Amino acid sequence: MLGLVVHEPLANGGLRLGWGVGHHVLDLLEGARALDHYAFEVRDFDGVAAIRDRLQAAGYTVSSVDVDLIDSSIGHAHGISVVDPDGNTVQFHSPVWRQGEGAATPGRRPVKYQHITLGTTDVTPLAAFFTDIVGFQISDQLDDGRFAWLRSDKDHHTLAIVNVGEAGNVDHYSYDLAEWEDFKSWCDKLTEYDVDVAWGPGRHGPGNNLFVFFDDPAGNHVELSAEMEKFYDDRVTYVPRRWEPLPKTVNLWGGQTPSWRRVGGTA
Amino acid sequence: MLGLVVHEPLANGGLRLGWGVGHHVLDLLEGARALDHYAFEVRDFDGVAAIRDRLQAAGYTVSSVDVDLIDSSIGHAHGISVVDPDGNTVQFHSPVWRQGEGAATPGRRPVKYQHITLGTTDVTPLAAFFTDIVGFQISDQLDDGRFAWLRSDKDHHTLAIVNVGEAGNVDHYSYDLAEWEDFKSWCDKLTEYDVDVAWGPGRHGPGNNLFVFFDDPAGNHVELSAEMEKFYDDRVTYVPRRWEPLPKTVNLWGGQTPSWRRVGGTA
Amino acid sequence: MLGLVVHEPLANGGLRLGWGVGHHVLDLLEGARALDHYAFEVRDFDGVAAIRDRLQAAGYTVSSVDVDLIDSSIGHAHGISVVDPDGNTVQFHSPVWRQGEGAATPGRRPVKYQHITLGTTDVTPLAAFFTDIVGFQISDQLDDGRFAWLRSDKDHHTLAIVNVGEAGNVDHYSYDLAEWEDFKSWCDKLTEYDVDVAWGPGRHGPGNNLFVFFDDPAGNHVELSAEMEKFYDDRVTYVPRRWEPLPKTVNLWGGQTPSWRRVGGTA
Amino acid sequence: MLGLVVHEPLANGGLRLGWGVGHHVLDLLEGARALDHYAFEVRDFDGVAAIRDRLQAAGYTVSSVDVDLIDSSIGHAHGISVVDPDGNTVQFHSPVWRQGEGAATPGRRPVKYQHITLGTTDVTPLAAFFTDIVGFQISDQLDDGRFAWLRSDKDHHTLAIVNVGEAGNVDHYSYDLAEWEDFKSWCDKLTEYDVDVAWGPGRHGPGNNLFVFFDDPAGNHVELSAEMEKFYDDRVTYVPRRWEPLPKTVNLWGGQTPSWRRVGGTA
Amino acid sequence: MLGLVVHEPLANGGLRLGWGVGHHVLDLLEGARALDHYAFEVRDFDGVAAIRDRLQAAGYTVSSVDVDLIDSSIGHAHGISVVDPDGNTVQFHSPVWRQGEGAATPGRRPVKYQHITLGTTDVTPLAAFFTDIVGFQISDQLDDGRFAWLRSDKDHHTLAIVNVGEAGNVDHYSYDLAEWEDFKSWCDKLTEYDVDVAWGPGRHGPGNNLFVFFDDPAGNHVELSAEMEKFYDDRVTYVPRRWEPLPKTVNLWGGQTPSWRRVGGTA
Amino acid sequence: MLGLVVHEPLANGGLRLGWGVGHHVLDLLEGARALDHYAFEVRDFDGVAAIRDRLQAAGYTVSSVDVDLIDSSIGHAHGISVVDPDGNTVQFHSPVWRQGEGAATPGRRPVKYQHITLGTTDVTPLAAFFTDIVGFQISDQLDDGRFAWLRSDKDHHTLAIVNVGEAGNVDHYSYDLAEWEDFKSWCDKLTEYDVDVAWGPGRHGPGNNLFVFFDDPAGNHVELSAEMEKFYDDRVTYVPRRWEPLPKTVNLWGGQTPSWRRVGGTA
Repeated sequence: MLGLVVHEPLANGGLRLGWGVGHHVLDLLEGARALDHYAFEVRDFDGVAAIRDRLQAAGYTVSSVDVDLIDSSIGHAHGISVVDPDGNTVQFHSPVWRQGEGAATPGRRPVKYQHITLGTTDVTPLAAFFTDIVGFQISDQLDDGRFAWLRSDKDHHTLAIVNVGEAGNVDHYSYDLAEWEDFKSWCDKLTEYDVDVAWGPGRHGPGNNLFVFFDDPAGNHVELSAEMEKFYDDRVTYVPRRWEPLPKTVNLWGGQTPSWRRVGGTA
Repeated sequence: MLGLVVHEPLANGGLRLGWGVGHHVLDLLEGARALDHYAFEVRDFDGVAAIRDRLQAAGYTVSSVDVDLIDSSIGHAHGISVVDPDGNTVQFHSPVWRQGEGAATPGRRPVKYQHITLGTTDVTPLAAFFTDIVGFQISDQLDDGRFAWLRSDKDHHTLAIVNVGEAGNVDHYSYDLAEWEDFKSWCDKLTEYDVDVAWGPGRHGPGNNLFVFFDDPAGNHVELSAEMEKFYDDRVTYVPRRWEPLPKTVNLWGGQTPSWRRVGGTA
Repeated sequence: MLGLVVHEPLANGGLRLGWGVGHHVLDLLEGARALDHYAFEVRDFDGVAAIRDRLQAAGYTVSSVDVDLIDSSIGHAHGISVVDPDGNTVQFHSPVWRQGEGAATPGRRPVKYQHITLGTTDVTPLAAFFTDIVGFQISDQLDDGRFAWLRSDKDHHTLAIVNVGEAGNVDHYSYDLAEWEDFKSWCDKLTEYDVDVAWGPGRHGPGNNLFVFFDDPAGNHVELSAEMEKFYDDRVTYVPRRWEPLPKTVNLWGGQTPSWRRVGGTA
Repeated sequence: MLGLVVHEPLANGGLRLGWGVGHHVLDLLEGARALDHYAFEVRDFDGVAAIRDRLQAAGYTVSSVDVDLIDSSIGHAHGISVVDPDGNTVQFHSPVWRQGEGAATPGRRPVKYQHITLGTTDVTPLAAFFTDIVGFQISDQLDDGRFAWLRSDKDHHTLAIVNVGEAGNVDHYSYDLAEWEDFKSWCDKLTEYDVDVAWGPGRHGPGNNLFVFFDDPAGNHVELSAEMEKFYDDRVTYVPRRWEPLPKTVNLWGGQTPSWRRVGGTA
Repeated sequence: MLGLVVHEPLANGGLRLGWGVGHHVLDLLEGARALDHYAFEVRDFDGVAAIRDRLQAAGYTVSSVDVDLIDSSIGHAHGISVVDPDGNTVQFHSPVWRQGEGAATPGRRPVKYQHITLGTTDVTPLAAFFTDIVGFQISDQLDDGRFAWLRSDKDHHTLAIVNVGEAGNVDHYSYDLAEWEDFKSWCDKLTEYDVDVAWGPGRHGPGNNLFVFFDDPAGNHVELSAEMEKFYDDRVTYVPRRWEPLPKTVNLWGGQTPSWRRVGGTA
Repeated sequence: MLGLVVHEPLANGGLRLGWGVGHHVLDLLEGARALDHYAFEVRDFDGVAAIRDRLQAAGYTVSSVDVDLIDSSIGHAHGISVVDPDGNTVQFHSPVWRQGEGAATPGRRPVKYQHITLGTTDVTPLAAFFTDIVGFQISDQLDDGRFAWLRSDKDHHTLAIVNVGEAGNVDHYSYDLAEWEDFKSWCDKLTEYDVDVAWGPGRHGPGNNLFVFFDDPAGNHVELSAEMEKFYDDRVTYVPRRWEPLPKTVNLWGGQTPSWRRVGGTA
């Protein structure tokens, strides 16, 4: 579903964890580290068609996804593919079974794939593509326009976009943990496998979610997350919030910020 | 194992959760909402035969169950079928593997199928069928004779029978959660899928179990339960307890009772 | 701090729990059930003076509070008193020691006094008094203008105002629990003391907090609360959210609503 | 409240823990180890008088307790004293404040004093005294008549009586822990203070409560307990249960039984 | 992986639990109860070859394991087999997928296979074989030389060796639980299946791990374990610790020791 | 007990938390920030005299502590004072009551004062003073001699000494939390009071304890700690471990190290 490219073959110990975490949401391809494509599951059965119609009305070329690539579809499998303003391929496909997700956890409660954060050189057009055409809504943004968090269901964000100075990039991808208790368990388990924590544990301002980051064997940042804020668009009207670009915004608790997550003047 | 009939096709988002919960214990058949059959797994290998003998001695007609319908049997698969005093088909079959149950949980600890509560017009003959012939024991009953809880192992009840004014009815079916912590998780998850809580969280008097109810897409009441009282018939003699038919009996904590669970004069 | 009047003398068993919960924040006076006064602690040492200045600039008559009534003040004790637009006396006083709060818990984690909800006939002028003059901010409100939640620190609300059809009324007062685990403990403990749950457990939309309500011996609604949303006004700009006046707004989980908390057309 | 006599002065390290646990419910007197007196708090304000009347009607001599010995009484302090069939002095007194109990916990959740178990040579007359005259009810008993558990409120037992071959004896006294998590904490803490676990952790059949035992510096057995079964006499009719005198009755989990808690033929 | 021989067929209820626990790490063979072989997974891809070289250099005869017996290998499957100084067959094989382990838990968090403890008549040569040739390190040992705990990764021990008076014996095998909370859950579940706790819950001195023991249907001791001490050989130098052979060494909490785990003069 | 000097008066909001945490173990004196004295409680009643004898035998001048400064002593209060090799005043006094410690927690489980870490220019003589004369033992040390952790009871360290380039300095002082769950609670609470986390949450190598650091209003580092390793000197022989001076030693999980805790070449 989320296409990443790794440098190294799977047959090494270090890779096992990343593999264990994301084994059914990552297509691993040989090649240079780059974003091949990313994809969204659309819960509503008519939703894929509606997105296709809006994309075509906006002048985008939409192609079909080979249904053989959509495992365990619920009902009739179908999917579409389009190139986003950054030139990335993005897919939208019909719902799939989720029962296997818990099974990947190497020692703690279930983990589900939660969101991807795209790296770009300009947040505005990419955010506009997702809000104006695809149908996402902005939950939060940095006041300097360099970071935006977008939702497509009750989760505060299922997609985020950050200015990292280059386009066509995955800033990080994120999985859900059940609760704070699991953060100790995962940090200890990562230590057992010689994988360093890269940032946190902490709590984000936008989304209010607990987080910890580590890198997968290909060097991508991976986030584990819990307690994300929920939105109820069926019963309340939200105005996107604007946050000061401060370290205390990306980690409410404070502490050191890693070199790849500078906010404010140093992004 | 537990036969229910649903009104709607599976291909809608709302159904996914009910589906995720009970997918391997429900046979979903096209037709009007009604009880097709229900079934019990007998742990003891000779137990099915003993039940068959007692049923036949009591004059019941017993037929065999097609063994192809018994998945993952431990040892030789066999099962019997009989019509209960209400005209429902009930099956008793040999043990099956239980390892898959935990896999259905969409975010929290394992869930096992726990009990069915039958709706009827007269509790006494149905309870007598299960205690006098099949071999269940009564753990608790309402003093007005309109509700009885029956056990077949260490759990306070694996079957309950309630007077709901019509026979051939499933009042509700129930799954076990590991602990109270999971009730918050499930209520939040149900909210995420736009499924309303129908009753609770609360704590039952009979069985002392924590509970919360919601409805599946077919309109059946579903209960999530934890901390059920245990019985040790091998080392203690129990006399069935009689409870006043009061709201505080069906929910020790008090609170509002749903329209379909009135006790006392308003049943 | 929060002045309530109770009908009955303290010397009865039923009162002990309410007493245990709120013993150091309630002044219990003989008389009819009514709101005598309510009070806020101002964390900032110069804050009381600033509120006094703003009140006087707006033409309100401000009197001093007898400092002997302010126990355990940090530094120099001082306080002011003013009559709000509904005719209630409200006090603002300097900080007090909080170390004793945890000690009142009869079996679980610490409890702190969290907020009061005022009942009124018209939410707007009372809310305006607190936002325009005293310095509170609105976090959430019902779209029909009949309920508003106001904050004075990082908590989503430290004061709420609801249209209950009469003024000079305490709709409920609320205490913080540490976590969801404590809700089971408290419901079981209340059951042990024959105090019924009046609403919940559930989760509010505005504030996102878990809640359960019961009544104190004087008939006031008491709320236990946890996981309340936090606001960070020093680093993010908020626009008050507007919620549909629906049962699913006041309890995200659904379930039955008590007779005294109707939303929508039936308030 | 519970009078015990200790051999040794308080000024030693080993005594500190026992002291920390029970400091406000134990009167420590110089002398040989023996039961000086034990006492019950009566929640109902008229209850002490009613017990006095029943005792006198049954021919017992009742004296008043010096009210100066009843700390922190709620309302008017009063108490009575009588000699039980074993010759022990037992007191019944009016309610006292409970807020200090949590404060004694040296590192975990609150502990309340829960019950005393009397050792005797004949369970029947002592149990009859408490049920027929004082007003307790039997919850459970061993089928050989050598152990009985009696309740006076919603807890399964607030008094137990066991045949230990001599009268005038405290078999053990017991405190409540909030939950299972605390058992690890307490066992680790006891280890830190060089106090050995004497039995458990385990789970009792009668009462269903989790338990662990250790000895105080005077050699008395002390129990820590949690999850005790509740009784609701206002809404359900109970018949005392009879348990086989087996090790699996006093510890459902099995495991080794200490020399001083033999059941069955070896009591 | 770990070869044990059981007396009885699988088709009985009592066996189901043991089966549920260890179903994918036990090869069950017909025959007398004895140790057929045991096996270690080597995480490093070159590690099996290195062990083979060291074994051959030390004069041991090394044979290959039939790769068909190594399920779900990561990369190229390979394994070697050698006879240890006690005459037991021991295998070392390449890494295998671990995702299925959590699925076996019948009601609580994931369980992974943790260690085997070999029974022998002489600890020293067997320990020397594993430390000097295979590459394990000693973490702890009893001062009388009758018990040694050896590590091969960050866990305090993945192998232990105890003098039980006969060789070619499995003293016990052990599984990891996630946390203390699970011990209550497992003891209650074992009680439900009529399996007695054989020792504990308690906490070991060597390894500092929480433990509880029960017997599988074949009579082998099974340990459930949590919180085992970790070793970081890449950044700290350890000297094997020597413990007094005392009951308080094998259970820090004290309590009764089972007949098969005597330490000190009575081993 | 632990003498620190603060710059600012107590009467400001920011100070309240630091005050709430350590209010009964800190003597706050006007003056420049410096270490006035520090103190140890000696559990054994004869222990103070024994330390005095050893200090005098080693040629140190020992004076008595004014017993009025020892609150709530158990038994006869006595204490001694001596100047350590760095010129700091250190006191040893008889045991005191600990019951008040839990009461300081503003929202979570009890906190006890756990250890002080002294900053110095030379670890060796200060460590030698405590091990050779006072009677502490070294649990762990960095291999470059710049950090040592010393124990005086079952805790891994009750005193630590670190080379920070100047003597007469408190590097940090530390309090115990009950468990990992409390770390989230404390970080959220500190955020509520605008106190930034300075380091962590993480897990130390030496001591294996979970930690998080923040600064008190005087700029001293404060540590919250849990799960510290225990030592059992009565039953096992320990050799001090030597750790590589690496970031992964002071935080096993990795992550960023604060500027004031560099290890290796950058100390």
